[in-house]
Amino acid sequence: MNIAIIGAGNVAWHLTKALYTRHRIVQVFSRSLDNAQALAEAVQCPAATDNIGSIVSDADAYIIMVKDDAIAEVAAQLAHINDSAIWMHTSGSCGCNALSNTATSYGVLYPLQTFSRNATIDTSEIPLFVEANTVDALSRISEIARCISSHIYPADSDTRRQLHIAAVFACNFANGLWRIADDILAQSDLPFSILMPLLKASIAKLDHMRPSEAQTGPAARGDMRIIDSHLSALTGEQHEIYKLLSDSILNHNKQKHE
Amino acid sequence: MNIAIIGAGNVAWHLTKALYTRHRIVQVFSRSLDNAQALAEAVQCPAATDNIGSIVSDADAYIIMVKDDAIAEVAAQLAHINDSAIWMHTSGSCGCNALSNTATSYGVLYPLQTFSRNATIDTSEIPLFVEANTVDALSRISEIARCISSHIYPADSDTRRQLHIAAVFACNFANGLWRIADDILAQSDLPFSILMPLLKASIAKLDHMRPSEAQTGPAARGDMRIIDSHLSALTGEQHEIYKLLSDSILNHNKQKHE
Repeated sequence: MNIAIIGAGNVAWHLTKALYTRHRIVQVFSRSLDNAQALAEAVQCPAATDNIGSIVSDADAYIIMVKDDAIAEVAAQLAHINDSAIWMHTSGSCGCNALSNTATSYGVLYPLQTFSRNATIDTSEIPLFVEANTVDALSRISEIARCISSHIYPADSDTRRQLHIAAVFACNFANGLWRIADDILAQSDLPFSILMPLLKASIAKLDHMRPSEAQTGPAARGDMRIIDSHLSALTGEQHEIYKLLSDSILNHNKQKHE
Repeated sequence: MNIAIIGAGNVAWHLTKALYTRHRIVQVFSRSLDNAQALAEAVQCPAATDNIGSIVSDADAYIIMVKDDAIAEVAAQLAHINDSAIWMHTSGSCGCNALSNTATSYGVLYPLQTFSRNATIDTSEIPLFVEANTVDALSRISEIARCISSHIYPADSDTRRQLHIAAVFACNFANGLWRIADDILAQSDLPFSILMPLLKASIAKLDHMRPSEAQTGPAARGDMRIIDSHLSALTGEQHEIYKLLSDSILNHNKQKHE
């Protein structure tokens, strides 16, 4: 399959490298010609451009991997340059119909992973969520997805939003708690690294049990003496978060045992 | 050194196995004779007992690894059976002076790790926090600690409480968020495992950057459109936690850029 890549950011970088093992990358577009050329070179692609007007009209697939708020503009500029190809974007928060005026077969290929340019990622482990405007379009997008990973799930826009919310809780908010832990340790001149063995053990447990079973700590034990002692040492936002999250664990355990 | 082990739970199991590579375990006590015998056997120790009155009085060190609320009783029952030995407990939330009526040289050796009986743990990576009633006692406890891990930090009771609070935020509360993410995914019939690659990538970042630098997500970008969209999809406790943790990240970023 001949694939045109629109965008050369972190997502484009990793997915395109996974795709070029099985497909031909015929063009890379980016508003930054340097970025387009760097990615094109990495995947033995002969054509890099920063001119959206010169995007080829004879590719088999077009993958739009630009920032969420640029998708609408890019989609409008590429409207109907190739109606027989399959078109997709890779955004978790943008609807499938963002491409409804661009082509007749379109959809979404959303990778649930965080990408950094320099990190090496085994894309075969990444869960991919696919959606399309027709059954045929879904099958064409899934075929492309299978070159990247075998973990492919159908997901409409509502499901992608639920996924995104779940990821915000699991990763972004967990990181917010790690930042608070770092602040607390800094008061005693201790580095965050002393928590890493504990943190890695906590994550490792999730390979074979659900978070609900893996829960430990004062709230999981219902140890109000320790909870009160900790609350008395905390103020402001830290006190509020400690209280709310302890209550959440206490309530959950109460429901579990009822 | 001849070491007597009081307790045969998960902490005792892992620390004793690490100690016996360099020291002689002369006795294992547990209220459960089966547990005492199993641990004794694992460390080539000839004596297991469930009778606290028969604990040997000629060991060089005594390590009390019983549950927090049993330390006082055990310490009282063993008062002055051996005043020349070094005595210690391994609790993060119990003061050093819990052993002040037991012996003349005493302290704490607190491992910051979660232990499961069946999991294999590389104890050499575990941070150990030590405290003692005299400089000499601290040096004797540190010598024992060095057989377990090279990550040894002095920490008084206040510091251990701060550590414990930091660990509650970083691990117990993070797990509470993972349970909420699991609940949200379950509504779309998706397994928690789809978040694991993202979660592992989030943790891997912390090997080379502080949580404050690693922060990503809608709140880190100040993306109020996404935050409001997510809040409108959440109710009750999940809504409250989403709001409080987003505000925490937004406030932190505001302070950082001021």
